[in-house]
Amino acid sequence: MSALQDLEQLLEDIKNKPASKTLPEGFPSEIPVSLQGIRKRLAFLLEKTDMDFPYLSGQQPFSDVSRLEGNIENYIGMSMVPTGVIGPVSVLGSMAKGDFYIPLATSEGSLLASYHRGARACYLAGGATSVCLIDGVQRSPVFKFDNLGNLGTFLVWIIGHLDEFRRITESASRYARLTDMKSNIEGNHLILTFEYHTGDASGQNMVTICTDAICQYIIQNAPVQPRFWFIESNFSGDKKATSQSFANVRGKKVTAEIMLPEKLVTDVLKTTPVAMAEYWRSSTIGTIQSGSIGAQGHYANGLTALFIATGQDVACVSEASVGITRMELTSDGGLYVSVTLPNLIVGTVGGGTSLPTQKECLELLGCYGAGKTRKFAEICGALVLAGEISIAAALSAGRFTAAHQKFGRKR
Amino acid sequence: MSALQDLEQLLEDIKNKPASKTLPEGFPSEIPVSLQGIRKRLAFLLEKTDMDFPYLSGQQPFSDVSRLEGNIENYIGMSMVPTGVIGPVSVLGSMAKGDFYIPLATSEGSLLASYHRGARACYLAGGATSVCLIDGVQRSPVFKFDNLGNLGTFLVWIIGHLDEFRRITESASRYARLTDMKSNIEGNHLILTFEYHTGDASGQNMVTICTDAICQYIIQNAPVQPRFWFIESNFSGDKKATSQSFANVRGKKVTAEIMLPEKLVTDVLKTTPVAMAEYWRSSTIGTIQSGSIGAQGHYANGLTALFIATGQDVACVSEASVGITRMELTSDGGLYVSVTLPNLIVGTVGGGTSLPTQKECLELLGCYGAGKTRKFAEICGALVLAGEISIAAALSAGRFTAAHQKFGRKR
Amino acid sequence: MSALQDLEQLLEDIKNKPASKTLPEGFPSEIPVSLQGIRKRLAFLLEKTDMDFPYLSGQQPFSDVSRLEGNIENYIGMSMVPTGVIGPVSVLGSMAKGDFYIPLATSEGSLLASYHRGARACYLAGGATSVCLIDGVQRSPVFKFDNLGNLGTFLVWIIGHLDEFRRITESASRYARLTDMKSNIEGNHLILTFEYHTGDASGQNMVTICTDAICQYIIQNAPVQPRFWFIESNFSGDKKATSQSFANVRGKKVTAEIMLPEKLVTDVLKTTPVAMAEYWRSSTIGTIQSGSIGAQGHYANGLTALFIATGQDVACVSEASVGITRMELTSDGGLYVSVTLPNLIVGTVGGGTSLPTQKECLELLGCYGAGKTRKFAEICGALVLAGEISIAAALSAGRFTAAHQKFGRKR
Amino acid sequence: MSALQDLEQLLEDIKNKPASKTLPEGFPSEIPVSLQGIRKRLAFLLEKTDMDFPYLSGQQPFSDVSRLEGNIENYIGMSMVPTGVIGPVSVLGSMAKGDFYIPLATSEGSLLASYHRGARACYLAGGATSVCLIDGVQRSPVFKFDNLGNLGTFLVWIIGHLDEFRRITESASRYARLTDMKSNIEGNHLILTFEYHTGDASGQNMVTICTDAICQYIIQNAPVQPRFWFIESNFSGDKKATSQSFANVRGKKVTAEIMLPEKLVTDVLKTTPVAMAEYWRSSTIGTIQSGSIGAQGHYANGLTALFIATGQDVACVSEASVGITRMELTSDGGLYVSVTLPNLIVGTVGGGTSLPTQKECLELLGCYGAGKTRKFAEICGALVLAGEISIAAALSAGRFTAAHQKFGRKR
Repeated sequence: MSALQDLEQLLEDIKNKPASKTLPEGFPSEIPVSLQGIRKRLAFLLEKTDMDFPYLSGQQPFSDVSRLEGNIENYIGMSMVPTGVIGPVSVLGSMAKGDFYIPLATSEGSLLASYHRGARACYLAGGATSVCLIDGVQRSPVFKFDNLGNLGTFLVWIIGHLDEFRRITESASRYARLTDMKSNIEGNHLILTFEYHTGDASGQNMVTICTDAICQYIIQNAPVQPRFWFIESNFSGDKKATSQSFANVRGKKVTAEIMLPEKLVTDVLKTTPVAMAEYWRSSTIGTIQSGSIGAQGHYANGLTALFIATGQDVACVSEASVGITRMELTSDGGLYVSVTLPNLIVGTVGGGTSLPTQKECLELLGCYGAGKTRKFAEICGALVLAGEISIAAALSAGRFTAAHQKFGRKR
Repeated sequence: MSALQDLEQLLEDIKNKPASKTLPEGFPSEIPVSLQGIRKRLAFLLEKTDMDFPYLSGQQPFSDVSRLEGNIENYIGMSMVPTGVIGPVSVLGSMAKGDFYIPLATSEGSLLASYHRGARACYLAGGATSVCLIDGVQRSPVFKFDNLGNLGTFLVWIIGHLDEFRRITESASRYARLTDMKSNIEGNHLILTFEYHTGDASGQNMVTICTDAICQYIIQNAPVQPRFWFIESNFSGDKKATSQSFANVRGKKVTAEIMLPEKLVTDVLKTTPVAMAEYWRSSTIGTIQSGSIGAQGHYANGLTALFIATGQDVACVSEASVGITRMELTSDGGLYVSVTLPNLIVGTVGGGTSLPTQKECLELLGCYGAGKTRKFAEICGALVLAGEISIAAALSAGRFTAAHQKFGRKR
Repeated sequence: MSALQDLEQLLEDIKNKPASKTLPEGFPSEIPVSLQGIRKRLAFLLEKTDMDFPYLSGQQPFSDVSRLEGNIENYIGMSMVPTGVIGPVSVLGSMAKGDFYIPLATSEGSLLASYHRGARACYLAGGATSVCLIDGVQRSPVFKFDNLGNLGTFLVWIIGHLDEFRRITESASRYARLTDMKSNIEGNHLILTFEYHTGDASGQNMVTICTDAICQYIIQNAPVQPRFWFIESNFSGDKKATSQSFANVRGKKVTAEIMLPEKLVTDVLKTTPVAMAEYWRSSTIGTIQSGSIGAQGHYANGLTALFIATGQDVACVSEASVGITRMELTSDGGLYVSVTLPNLIVGTVGGGTSLPTQKECLELLGCYGAGKTRKFAEICGALVLAGEISIAAALSAGRFTAAHQKFGRKR
Repeated sequence: MSALQDLEQLLEDIKNKPASKTLPEGFPSEIPVSLQGIRKRLAFLLEKTDMDFPYLSGQQPFSDVSRLEGNIENYIGMSMVPTGVIGPVSVLGSMAKGDFYIPLATSEGSLLASYHRGARACYLAGGATSVCLIDGVQRSPVFKFDNLGNLGTFLVWIIGHLDEFRRITESASRYARLTDMKSNIEGNHLILTFEYHTGDASGQNMVTICTDAICQYIIQNAPVQPRFWFIESNFSGDKKATSQSFANVRGKKVTAEIMLPEKLVTDVLKTTPVAMAEYWRSSTIGTIQSGSIGAQGHYANGLTALFIATGQDVACVSEASVGITRMELTSDGGLYVSVTLPNLIVGTVGGGTSLPTQKECLELLGCYGAGKTRKFAEICGALVLAGEISIAAALSAGRFTAAHQKFGRKR
């Protein structure tokens, strides 16, 4: 509900959104890498954000292995992943407001160039609205009984002890808050899905600890004992794309949108809104035929690069890269584009967020530490929006045969 | 078919597989990181594999930015991802044969410890069979016509020109080979799925180039023009989990299996085959309920860490982490475990494989350069098998209530 | 929650469940159809249930076309679907208690013979527990706005008017009760899912009428107008299998279970619990690979035949035939089997329930009219359980090679 | 490939398609049922098609129970399902050419009225193109081995015996033809998918018999014995919606399309092409969110009613009702609509096709007996197209708020 209040405020901001910004002050973008280019970009970022990057730039070698505590076992050294910056990415969010330079770590050529181009289009269109709508992380233990009768007795007892489970959660973690519990019966199996708010941590460990504490209490006190139980039934969607998480929430749910004027699509993206809308329709049908969960282009590219750079749990790209992209013509010949990411497992504390280069990258976004996760999630939404616009533009540009160009004009 | 010939040979090897190996010569495993531990591990690996790791260990700073050509734009520096090693991972494959020390890059604590434990169990059971069965990478252009009639005329022409498409493929790429073409009609949309062998590259760029060359030829020569076309209909499953890729192949398809004797499960994994089989069944049902594609535990964890360390396209974890894990009791009270990964998009040339630390990590596996991709894919299979065993053991250990322990004994 | 109370009571019944019943008094089962056989069965049913079947048996021709009001347009006559009876099906439910003779209308040979065999096994095992757990029917209108900001303002207003929507529901229908409302934001699209209890009607029309009344109120009173809206976004799962309905509820959710002693499996089903458990595991893996929603054998066969016979909306088999079947060995060598059907759209009033033969068939089950839908749903569960047992038995019998028979014995 | 040749011929027909027909000669449509209306419709059909309907109309009672042989067990009588007729449905197919009156059996009020309205729009637009593209019915036995090595030896042998399997198929059935075999390895499980042409039968029994014969040969002759095997792994998609069948074929694959001029949409369907296109986009997004297989409105309604009337295996609606509907604006302001049904399990011989009323209904369509299945499938396509148009028109009509009507005009 707090997100909804933010939306009301956002309404005013959006009304005042400039139809089109002027060109961004020249971020020194570059495709072939040069030492001079690196220096220029670092200088630009220093001026713009007052940040230097001792670890990322290699000026300061890493030596304090105690900083790795809890992050790795059998350590032998540091893998180095090439990292660049795109931007400015202009975000109109409930927590993320303003222009951001986004660090991306990848070895896939053209990824940054593509996202950078999309970001430029979004910037010139006045920025992307991006809102973190809801959040929740789940654990789903399963309990197995001798029969349905025992299961029923157990479940009646469980439902009477929700307040106790909330109390246990508060004891087990300073940050976690139990927000919901759902039950799901299948024969003599009972899955209980506990959903939590996890503050600014991505929260998978936190919800495991809390759920284990709740389960220990249950096992000790319930009037009927399950034959056995497991703390995770594989229903919660951890590290995998699932229809359930997709249609609900896992981590943060973000939606982002933008209106691209026709001229901007033509001038900057070198295609037309008609062509992009046709591409969207055809590719959405293609996605449906492939048996995908959701329908999107390449969320995984941008998210993976951002997750590596900022110390997120990169394996969660499995679930985070699921969502829906939508593109449609507007009544004035422009293009409406939206992306929806319901499964953003992200955090700005814990995990790899305090590692040397990762901390620097989070700080570049103003997203290091407590109180920053929703902001970070909204930046993810804007990034992904830029990427979807860019790939649809590239795939639709110049791919129309003569016959269609006539068709396009007729429209 | 060549994979099948390999399987015949494998049969003999497997027959001679030792029921149980002795303990591996002490790889200096360690949970809290210490400088002494790092030195010990580097020394151990030097002795075992004759490899040192100048970049990974930080002894040699990275300076030659020309090595980044084609990997990144807007570069500012290197993200450092903590990297450790697990092993030995004993693999009985068609290309991967022997004991491997596998580098994993992650910031998620306990990930390496968990995979290491699984690898130890597999080693003691005589090693994991892991076979790369088939391979293929797809591009799926879509062509849109005025009506079904035109589409039909076009498709009849297309089917008559397969040999020409093969020839074009050979001209467009030294490595790609067109192996199949499928058509899929939906109203006035025609999707053509071109499937290629891509040698030792992961191949996404290669198949785009070849398919574009084929499409240009089609557009110039076909008797009927599509109204428009796009080089990718989003049907091919690039960067996303899909039912189609899962049930067929995308990249390499690998299956791996092992028999764990009961005593080994009890002694090393601290649980029982009965408990693991119960966990598997319950969690498979949980996965089905979640609307997942396939049914597995946490393939994404190991694959992501290995992909980062070895310069793979990490975003492909979206599709690579889909598969099926199976666990069942054997007639002598042990546990059969298999994993199947049909969508391993991996390469040992191109992409990030030549970057400084990434090359070192591939060399540690004996997987750098041409002729190594199938070997690398089989190592992926064995790694994932170890991870599935470890998590199922952890989740099933100690989670049985008194009632069940009695039940367990009876079995 | 009332279902849960029923479960507690059920617990006692189940405890007293006879391990094995004696053979049912001979229902005159018959594979080739004969006039004598028909007479015997009608006589048997008359004696057992005090029912004759004037319309079904053809003794009374149908003439009163006014009974068709609201069921059909452009009527020309009656399609005749062959109908038989299986049973007794012994049900231990919260509403369905006792032995039932179930009418099935089909033209697929061996369908009834197969379900009859399964029912016999269940009867001899003491009957199937079958419980209607929860119920709910949904309508999901979608509202489209100029932008997210407007959507947010609208949604804040919506959430403040739930009581009004409940009141409107009560005015619009005597039977419907609004039990839940969920919101789902995707860009500038807002889907509201209204969930209702629909009494003893299957309820699709009822929820449309109520939701339309609510939407009219919303459009007239909301502070922000959507650009447009549709009463159904195709999210509710009407007439189609969906992951969402499968993991939640649509119509009634029923789960049914039984323990089959080893001797019964051997003697009646001519296979072994080991073979059936193996079949279940292999076929569940096969189902997962096929990209099915849920995992079951042939729910559609029994449900379609029962739906035709009893005047249900047969097209709802699309969603009703989704669920999970589970089979596993018990500690004493028997077989546990359960089925779970979360999307049973069924009713005992309205629709085709009052048509001549359909009414007779519902009366045979004691399920005609108000207050009978949960009972009917539980009978569906028991029927489907019988069918799953029968097909698994048939597919597993005699399909083991010599090698396995040895394996089987060892177990 | 033969379908493709048909498409070429079709091209010419379609070119000559009248832009718009005149109103159909008055089929006496009626919503409330009256004896007079029934007489009028029967007289109309007699004149138009030279058919009377002694069984359907109730003039001739059913008595010859020997006609039920192979269709039912434990028979007690005939369920009567109300049946009406819609039409003319104008079809431009490769086998179905002309105007059809389609019988539908249902108890759901307004179903026929809705399909009738859609059919009228299609008729006035010159008829629906509907083409049966490909066909194939599958059985997927699974073989389980001691290990991958044995599986490999077995599979190498299998691949060398395809010709033998074709020969066995020809011996086992007069009609079946083995067209393809695919293998799918998962650990020590091997699924072989045999695909057949089944002539004019729906073919499920035929493919079971042939596959069993093949498997018996395999078991007797293969160099390695599986530990066990089952004739169906549940991979083939029998009686369930699956992603695999949806993206390939199961039974017949049909696609149908039509162009509706703007004026026709306004005059006959009382909505606008813009509104219908908006509805399509919103509802497709809604469907994606629901986790459906494919994306369509209510294929199940029309197919179920036609299947009951014509003696099809109605339970196959589970798979047959999966597909893709697409609607989009044309350059001249009209609406393009297509439907694609890849899983039409239908037959015109065998099953229930010879039952009294079912035979009459097939004869009304000119689809009784050998050589008619592709024609019947194309009629299914046109019927479903009419239904999708009708529901989208109904849901989009009058649902636009004032703001949108302005928007609509602007377009």
